Amino acid sequence: MRVLGIDPGSNFLGLGCVEAQGSSFVWIGQRLLKVNPGGEQPLHVRLKLIHEGLLDALSAWSPDAVAVEEVFLAKNPQSALKLGQARGAALVGAAASGLEIFEYPASLVKQTVTGSGRAEKAQVQTMVKAILGRTLPPAMEFEREDISDALAIAICHLQHRRQRQILAPKAAKKLGPRAGL
Amino acid sequence: MRVLGIDPGSNFLGLGCVEAQGSSFVWIGQRLLKVNPGGEQPLHVRLKLIHEGLLDALSAWSPDAVAVEEVFLAKNPQSALKLGQARGAALVGAAASGLEIFEYPASLVKQTVTGSGRAEKAQVQTMVKAILGRTLPPAMEFEREDISDALAIAICHLQHRRQRQILAPKAAKKLGPRAGL
Repeated sequence: MRVLGIDPGSNFLGLGCVEAQGSSFVWIGQRLLKVNPGGEQPLHVRLKLIHEGLLDALSAWSPDAVAVEEVFLAKNPQSALKLGQARGAALVGAAASGLEIFEYPASLVKQTVTGSGRAEKAQVQTMVKAILGRTLPPAMEFEREDISDALAIAICHLQHRRQRQILAPKAAKKLGPRAGL
Repeated sequence: MRVLGIDPGSNFLGLGCVEAQGSSFVWIGQRLLKVNPGGEQPLHVRLKLIHEGLLDALSAWSPDAVAVEEVFLAKNPQSALKLGQARGAALVGAAASGLEIFEYPASLVKQTVTGSGRAEKAQVQTMVKAILGRTLPPAMEFEREDISDALAIAICHLQHRRQRQILAPKAAKKLGPRAGL
């Protein structure tokens, strides 16, 4: 089971792919897409970059599912709109490829990887590194928190999927997004 | 010159295609996509419906450009996020097909078709019907305002493009989105 985690921000979109192998989590790849490189690209150029970046990542990693953070709070309507637009542009590529999209609240993602739903971004980053451990390429650095967050979302989905299968192996297939959360 | 106007709302997405022929505007087609049919579809299903609906309309009408309302105000961050997500999902299909996307403020769309930037939705609908006149199919009804708004946005782009060409025919090609507004 291989999952692509997506962390769509207003300026950057983080992608992180993780695979569950037995009881361990294996780093498959990570990418940072600049949503608005140069700052003044017209809308269709920005959307095209997101779309192509997503399709390229899907083709490189062939994930089985996509996981994304459920967004509850945004500072203001304008930034929420911008965020939603990048999110829709990114997710539609995955949806069009027939992948299921699972949403997890940010607090659950943090709790899953750090043990605390109120963990700081830096703690999430440290724990993601620890969880993926030796499967990370040597001297791997996360360029931005958008990437470690994306990997954390992928780990969160794999972890909760595993728990659901242990708890109810026969029902697992029927559970839709957000089920059991 | 044929333009697809898109009015993305949280529940419905209006599509309206208009062509400029000489000095008149010709109705090409209109569609209403339900963004959340049934109300409980998972995210990937909703996004896939928007994506497929858009691609199908693009293939049926072959527009030269896409026009969409610039959104400035949303009631709250949560609805702005929902709106932005539908907008991004819809526009990415157009952007991926290589179409330019032009944004116009709602007030300019209203002013262009009714003469008043503060016109009511019903006035916009009446004027869109008057402008497209006999090119509308007999007994044509707009199922919802989302459709008349989408047609108004397409008319707005064609009208302003025409004015720019009259004012500066050589410069017209260089003008990007929002230029001259």
